[in-house]
Amino acid sequence: MTTTPATRRPRRPGRPGYDLDSLLAVAVKVFNDKGYDGTSMDVLADRLGLSKSSIYHHVSGKQELLELALNRALNALFAVTTETGATQGRYIDRLEYLVRRSVDILVAELPYVTLLLRVRGNSTVERRALARRREFDAFVSDLAAAAAEEGDLLPDIDPALVARLLFGTVNSLIEWYRPRAGASPDDIADAVIAMTFDGLRRT
Amino acid sequence: MTTTPATRRPRRPGRPGYDLDSLLAVAVKVFNDKGYDGTSMDVLADRLGLSKSSIYHHVSGKQELLELALNRALNALFAVTTETGATQGRYIDRLEYLVRRSVDILVAELPYVTLLLRVRGNSTVERRALARRREFDAFVSDLAAAAAEEGDLLPDIDPALVARLLFGTVNSLIEWYRPRAGASPDDIADAVIAMTFDGLRRT
Repeated sequence: MTTTPATRRPRRPGRPGYDLDSLLAVAVKVFNDKGYDGTSMDVLADRLGLSKSSIYHHVSGKQELLELALNRALNALFAVTTETGATQGRYIDRLEYLVRRSVDILVAELPYVTLLLRVRGNSTVERRALARRREFDAFVSDLAAAAAEEGDLLPDIDPALVARLLFGTVNSLIEWYRPRAGASPDDIADAVIAMTFDGLRRT
Repeated sequence: MTTTPATRRPRRPGRPGYDLDSLLAVAVKVFNDKGYDGTSMDVLADRLGLSKSSIYHHVSGKQELLELALNRALNALFAVTTETGATQGRYIDRLEYLVRRSVDILVAELPYVTLLLRVRGNSTVERRALARRREFDAFVSDLAAAAAEEGDLLPDIDPALVARLLFGTVNSLIEWYRPRAGASPDDIADAVIAMTFDGLRRT
């Protein structure tokens, strides 16, 4: 395959115009559209308007693109676990902070988190990502257990189940949230927190 | 392709041993594993240990199998909307009832609902299913709006967003719920209701 001009944006001839970040953004979009397994390097090269060798200038192959994309989502989520709001104060407040910031990250990194949440463990890279997701889930679960210890969590509810339901709610955003349509990210974060921490029923 | 004996269960030779329900159950499992678009009639016949003509004895093709499967999930969910619990009493209680029963149905019809929730609208059958899903969402949204009218819903929250978040939580079960592992369906329904209607924070 030879270098073909991109059809969607003007570009100087012969200048690919991609750095690693913008190449990754396109690759992630293709992975989300066609599935990672269904995306060949030929398809990627075609969509990027690049030769395969131009892609290999940036990365060793599609597996490296996948790993970079998954790590971008995971690193953003893990960064939150070390922020002050997640490490100081009462545990229920740390848990709430973590949920709110996770909504922020889902919205800011939507394609990357979408890719992460669809990973099924078909390769070493995917299994490593799943292991890090489990580590994150355990962090959430531990916060919920500690909040229960402090007497701030609804009683008689399994902390691991709390973690799953909270992130079930948060992660559902990838199914329906679309930028520039409807509620703002802050409105959504407020609504998630209000529903899950205060409850929908006005008593 | 000729009729090949099934490897997983004993069966009298030459007797397929499937009625429409059991054939559908296998087809749905294959659709969920390989994706509907990635499943050919040959693959289905192979997995069923049937000839394609034996399948055509039951249905006109894989599209009919898809439609039957999606309707099974949708009909179960819509049946709830006409039950007394969803049609009488205060709206906040109707909403709670609908959520609880939807958890029941997700658990009882897990493979069918999983298939439904992955539909992307690639065919007329899929678009019809999506239209019915939107109709169901509108029913939930209307209950939330009416509950707000009655003053029973957390104020300042968009009823359509409430519907999305509630069913985001419920639908997340397809990602992690596995029969015979961990919490019982009733425990899960209790936890979903407790978190979303009463809130996790003990005040």
